[in-house]
Amino acid sequence: MTLTIWTYNWVPPPPRGHVRDLRLRWACEEAQLPYRIATVRFEDRTGPDHLARQPFAQVPALQDGKIRLFESGACLLHLADKSETLMPADPQTRAETLEWVIAGLNSIEMVSVPWWFIGLSSPPENPLEGWLTSRLSRLNAVLATRDHLAANRFTVADLLMADILRVPKLRAALIDYPALQAFLTRTLDRPAFRKAQQDQLDHFAAADAARAR
Amino acid sequence: MTLTIWTYNWVPPPPRGHVRDLRLRWACEEAQLPYRIATVRFEDRTGPDHLARQPFAQVPALQDGKIRLFESGACLLHLADKSETLMPADPQTRAETLEWVIAGLNSIEMVSVPWWFIGLSSPPENPLEGWLTSRLSRLNAVLATRDHLAANRFTVADLLMADILRVPKLRAALIDYPALQAFLTRTLDRPAFRKAQQDQLDHFAAADAARAR
Repeated sequence: MTLTIWTYNWVPPPPRGHVRDLRLRWACEEAQLPYRIATVRFEDRTGPDHLARQPFAQVPALQDGKIRLFESGACLLHLADKSETLMPADPQTRAETLEWVIAGLNSIEMVSVPWWFIGLSSPPENPLEGWLTSRLSRLNAVLATRDHLAANRFTVADLLMADILRVPKLRAALIDYPALQAFLTRTLDRPAFRKAQQDQLDHFAAADAARAR
Repeated sequence: MTLTIWTYNWVPPPPRGHVRDLRLRWACEEAQLPYRIATVRFEDRTGPDHLARQPFAQVPALQDGKIRLFESGACLLHLADKSETLMPADPQTRAETLEWVIAGLNSIEMVSVPWWFIGLSSPPENPLEGWLTSRLSRLNAVLATRDHLAANRFTVADLLMADILRVPKLRAALIDYPALQAFLTRTLDRPAFRKAQQDQLDHFAAADAARAR
């Protein structure tokens, strides 16, 4: 059964290479799970068809046979259940993978995304700066002692955390965290990431070409 | 095998009734899973023993036989795998439960917790106000059409979302969202929530008494 990853047909240039369908593309590439891309028109993202698929008017969503789900974190955990490349089946290392996926979503991204969002308006002080620093310091301490977040090998938790940390403004802030920089460099050097990123860039570039015709 | 939920031995009064071990207590009460409480001294939360258990110096953590894990969201999903009361086994409704657990953590709480945190310092304008409003509106639209987030019945996704929405400042903001208010009222009326909340309040009150001796 081929998986279907839903994304937009087109987005403006700034988020290209960072739209969250990339997380699912990357996971499928790592696990060699066949998938196709389906699109909702960017202009139709708040319409009833897309809200039935993604109630917050975002992407991605995933279709796996009759199963449909949204939230990139949920889609990643669903994919991870299909492949030990993404998540080991052994109960302890599975639990480690799960806890670090959730830590990415709820301990790091819960601070880093609002920090990034507030930074867009360039306030004199970012009220989340100290909190972000504290979280990155703790994460840096973990990755100073080991190469991977969970299971002593690459898992979907590394994939997600690398995608969280690579946001340009955040990546620039990692200069004070050498273990995070090293983690990011080696994780983004994986061929599956590079293919997923290029495929997303090509997808949106093709939409530009179609619009220009 | 009895589960062990880790929390602090004591916290100052303001967070009592809201420390996140409550999520795990509540889930165990719903599923009738036996559990015991273990504690780390509040003063020792940044010490090496606790950082090995919870690298961000927080609670809760969960021990299930040899399996240890942290992050309340991860612990909830781990518990949910033990009981269909928390998460149905059927693949589609399981996926719905998973997506709404992650939506709680990464679409609602990713905005509501930083919004709450920034509000503590009473700025003239909260830069996350518009984003929070948008997310609550979308969630309200979902719960205006059904009683439960997933599976047409109570699941761990309702438990988590109710715990997210009941934070006092956020709850006050729900006055504009009748479906969220109704959802919260009926979910918090569950005996398992009331027991979990009272047990946490009693736990910290007992620590006060021990300190006073």
